[in-house]
Amino acid sequence: MSKVYVVGIGPGAKKQMTLEAEEILQSCDLIVGYTVYVDLVRETFPEKQFLTTPMRQEAKRCEMALETAKQGKCVAMVCSGDAGVYGMAGLMFEIGTKFPEVEIEIVPGITAASGGASVLGAPLIHDFAVISLSDLLTPWEKIEKRLRAAAMADFVVCLYNPSSKKRHDYLEKACVCLLEYKREDTVCGIVRNIGRTGESYKILSLEELKYTETDMFTTVFIGNEQTKIVNGRMVTPRGYRDVQ
Amino acid sequence: MSKVYVVGIGPGAKKQMTLEAEEILQSCDLIVGYTVYVDLVRETFPEKQFLTTPMRQEAKRCEMALETAKQGKCVAMVCSGDAGVYGMAGLMFEIGTKFPEVEIEIVPGITAASGGASVLGAPLIHDFAVISLSDLLTPWEKIEKRLRAAAMADFVVCLYNPSSKKRHDYLEKACVCLLEYKREDTVCGIVRNIGRTGESYKILSLEELKYTETDMFTTVFIGNEQTKIVNGRMVTPRGYRDVQ
Repeated sequence: MSKVYVVGIGPGAKKQMTLEAEEILQSCDLIVGYTVYVDLVRETFPEKQFLTTPMRQEAKRCEMALETAKQGKCVAMVCSGDAGVYGMAGLMFEIGTKFPEVEIEIVPGITAASGGASVLGAPLIHDFAVISLSDLLTPWEKIEKRLRAAAMADFVVCLYNPSSKKRHDYLEKACVCLLEYKREDTVCGIVRNIGRTGESYKILSLEELKYTETDMFTTVFIGNEQTKIVNGRMVTPRGYRDVQ
Repeated sequence: MSKVYVVGIGPGAKKQMTLEAEEILQSCDLIVGYTVYVDLVRETFPEKQFLTTPMRQEAKRCEMALETAKQGKCVAMVCSGDAGVYGMAGLMFEIGTKFPEVEIEIVPGITAASGGASVLGAPLIHDFAVISLSDLLTPWEKIEKRLRAAAMADFVVCLYNPSSKKRHDYLEKACVCLLEYKREDTVCGIVRNIGRTGESYKILSLEELKYTETDMFTTVFIGNEQTKIVNGRMVTPRGYRDVQ
């Protein structure tokens, strides 16, 4: 049967790719993806055939992958992080209904929440919510509702897409929502370029986070009531009755 | 400097381990962990030295690892899934304050949310909340509050530890909370033994989930308003204004 793999390649560094992802990229006939992600794997698999499409052409990218697989080639579509977390896995299944002869397999990868957490310390040790601040496909009111609900119930919150050129004040607006329920001194962390050249992190308070500049390569973590700084790292305890 | 790695080995199958995790386990002097997780890697690295401790002795396990590293050995503590998601990373930093000469590095892995999602289809494509139903370290009232908040704000919800022998009715109780805000026909999925022998999944409604038996090897996914079944798989669209 013809097959398309949707492969999460992790945050950036090759070493954060799974053995399965590497094996599939090694053995497939064609690697398809958004230019930036394809460039991340091109060095590792220089002899491969690549097909890139610009941003915002996600549906076309899926169709190209499925069309090529239908012709009998083994195709891998690459996504940064996890293909199943704000990735292309969903759209591939939806467009895949037009290609019933092509099997779709999702290959999970390390998402920015996991990758970023390991850089900061251990912020996600207990219940957490993952929220994207991009309002390209979601009304901002819905995003605010989720921020408030997550803060009210004392989730650790991990923010994807905290800002972009057009949305420079979104992180500030998000912090204002979170501050309705979370303390100003809540321990927060930001990580830039996870697993890539120039990786950096900073630990700061929620009040400080509000006035922090971020970009689309930044992932943001806001602690729960119990999150603390341990030896310079951001650490959330396992629960409320934790004893050592 | 002496070093302890806290390594997430992924859900189970060796292929879902990252290249980095494999390299560290290959090169370290000692692998420490809970018996079940150590057994998962013992086959792959048969020549290694292993040290296991039973469940509930997490603090002791961290001390053993840090003590051995202090003596100049390179130690890797293994956790299933991601070391930073309900894993040992946090406790290691906390106990690590007693061992200032030992550096701690977290190596992220594929957590059950990512691994299970890839089996079901693409349920986590948009904002989601991860909640453990274990009340060993968290009061049940807090868990219910988080379930209600996540349901109210239409998050996709991923449940870890949905039940155990002592907590056989916890998933039912959780579904009752979620049903206060989510429709009975909300698309849900359960995955057993992710990446291990006997991996299986089922897609069902929230009403059906309420009466479903699970165990500690099951991960549960509850969709948002938009989650649907596409060609037998559980798929959440990327957002509310999604068009193809």
